[in-house]
Amino acid sequence: MRLEMEESGTWKSCIGAISELVEETNFEFGEDAVEMKAMDPSHVVLVDFRLSREACQEYDIEESKELGIDLTEMNRIMSRAKKSDWLSLSFSEDDNTLAVTFEGNGVRTFTLPLISLEVEETPDPDLDHTAWASVGAGAIKDGLKDASLMKDNVTIKLSEENLLLSAESDAGEAETELSPESDAVEGLDVDESSKAVYNIEFLQKMLKGAGSKDMVEVSHGTDMPIDLTLPLADGKGHLRFLLAPRVEAE
Amino acid sequence: MRLEMEESGTWKSCIGAISELVEETNFEFGEDAVEMKAMDPSHVVLVDFRLSREACQEYDIEESKELGIDLTEMNRIMSRAKKSDWLSLSFSEDDNTLAVTFEGNGVRTFTLPLISLEVEETPDPDLDHTAWASVGAGAIKDGLKDASLMKDNVTIKLSEENLLLSAESDAGEAETELSPESDAVEGLDVDESSKAVYNIEFLQKMLKGAGSKDMVEVSHGTDMPIDLTLPLADGKGHLRFLLAPRVEAE
Amino acid sequence: MRLEMEESGTWKSCIGAISELVEETNFEFGEDAVEMKAMDPSHVVLVDFRLSREACQEYDIEESKELGIDLTEMNRIMSRAKKSDWLSLSFSEDDNTLAVTFEGNGVRTFTLPLISLEVEETPDPDLDHTAWASVGAGAIKDGLKDASLMKDNVTIKLSEENLLLSAESDAGEAETELSPESDAVEGLDVDESSKAVYNIEFLQKMLKGAGSKDMVEVSHGTDMPIDLTLPLADGKGHLRFLLAPRVEAE
Repeated sequence: MRLEMEESGTWKSCIGAISELVEETNFEFGEDAVEMKAMDPSHVVLVDFRLSREACQEYDIEESKELGIDLTEMNRIMSRAKKSDWLSLSFSEDDNTLAVTFEGNGVRTFTLPLISLEVEETPDPDLDHTAWASVGAGAIKDGLKDASLMKDNVTIKLSEENLLLSAESDAGEAETELSPESDAVEGLDVDESSKAVYNIEFLQKMLKGAGSKDMVEVSHGTDMPIDLTLPLADGKGHLRFLLAPRVEAE
Repeated sequence: MRLEMEESGTWKSCIGAISELVEETNFEFGEDAVEMKAMDPSHVVLVDFRLSREACQEYDIEESKELGIDLTEMNRIMSRAKKSDWLSLSFSEDDNTLAVTFEGNGVRTFTLPLISLEVEETPDPDLDHTAWASVGAGAIKDGLKDASLMKDNVTIKLSEENLLLSAESDAGEAETELSPESDAVEGLDVDESSKAVYNIEFLQKMLKGAGSKDMVEVSHGTDMPIDLTLPLADGKGHLRFLLAPRVEAE
Repeated sequence: MRLEMEESGTWKSCIGAISELVEETNFEFGEDAVEMKAMDPSHVVLVDFRLSREACQEYDIEESKELGIDLTEMNRIMSRAKKSDWLSLSFSEDDNTLAVTFEGNGVRTFTLPLISLEVEETPDPDLDHTAWASVGAGAIKDGLKDASLMKDNVTIKLSEENLLLSAESDAGEAETELSPESDAVEGLDVDESSKAVYNIEFLQKMLKGAGSKDMVEVSHGTDMPIDLTLPLADGKGHLRFLLAPRVEAE
């Protein structure tokens, strides 16, 4: 099994974000795509990753394979990659390792021992979301940081007018209004206004892999999990997160 | 009461510097200007801030008003502004709050509860300074950092030849000479040579809001408080500090 | 005695690297060059520094002189220099101090008290190295950082094909291959393949003064000390390190 990408950036930023939430899990190196689905240890976030073979310069997988990966170790390795390094992932059956190679200024190879994991089935609920938006990651990150000055949770509302992030405490209030008129919003489609409360730290971890100009697909419903999806490699994959809402006394 | 500035930078850097020295104080939102005068808790520094209505794009104040502001909170809020964000300050009589709004990539509003303060009268001594200079903030900051390698206090001397910053200890000496020939000095006007000793940390806090190329107006006299004034918004305001000298055994 | 260089960068980066390894030592300000040879306190690294008079804009030394320098203090001073500052070093016999002056935005002078040192003779072994390479400092630093993810020591091998940096532990393996085909290697000359193990932290300190594009002259032999030499000022000097190998049970 061997896989090559002309740039390390996508894999690096995805591993960076996933490793914030999941310590170890199985990746399926399948015939059409590399896929991973896992919950964080507190079962509040679902992580759903997919990178299709079209996103790779070489994709030599004859038979689908589950590889157990220690994401902390994988992230330590990927943090050594330069974004522009050519990346190869190569599985060695003999010693059950994954060789991670960066080619740039020299050829640098890390050998990562694989692990054997009993992974529980990951639920993927079918959600009746009623509002959708396409928003710049930087604007959402700003709004989350603003809200974090006030408290740990943020209220997210979508309406026909805008997407609102707000938080209120004794220290005051913070509110970010992202309307379709601003550069930050590319699309807003609301069947029914929605409102729910989420933990800010989880949202920040979910967006860790997104550059400030990357667009995030938001899918939302009142008191429902929020779906944040980052398209990867021009749509040839995605990094998707589903975060459960907090139930707050008003 | 409502006030708008096309850039957040000036207000942000002033609040940043003032909050290093003063925890809470009253700002007077007057008919012609926003003004503030306060001492730091140790009564060593006088801070004197003024931003005239001409520095604002909108200045809608019908009646002069004293607003008690927690500068630590205000600074936490302003630290979230991008320099180029459009800034609005808007007082709400009903709930005694100040709304601080940044418009850039989205519209972000913070609501700051105001506080009620008994503020003592701030003295503003009339000083018989004998030497004046206009010096780049970066050069002064470099000289202060140099001096701080040796001790906590710096000796400042102004003469017809130059402005000297020096400090001496067992570890050696540091001396910075800023003469009118250097790019750092735009003006030097000395009736009588002056010399006094000041605490370095206070001077560094006073210059925190100044960019390295901003010019600082220095006004000085032997064993007198030093006056450092930063012109704001092309002269439509100022941030001025008066720091008492240290009395050192020679 | 007086010495001037049109840029502070070379002296600054050399002092920075040397002070990581040697706390205090004598520098010989000779008629043709400034020279220093010293061991680190654990006697694992030999440091050999030379800057010839041709590297200086002024070099006024009538009589060779040994000056005892506290490198921690000297580094604190040099860290205040901007690379482009004009640098002067001037010895004062009267009070046994070295004046270090930076001219840039103003004239900044530090006075460093000299110290009196009994310095032991520094050995400089004649080594039968069998392999040589000229390699970019950045590529070596990357390889060392990679290896440090795995353990404290790195195995360095030179062969006709390449220079290899590798480390292996329970957490996996890291290997950097620098071949003459890569941009990182300018020369590789091997009489006999060589292999030895070194402490990574020492190697990193030795390269601290090198920019990532600076070329490092590597001289190597099996289980022998490694020689890393950084040419200074277009060959008008050098900063050379000799690091003893670790003896590792295979």
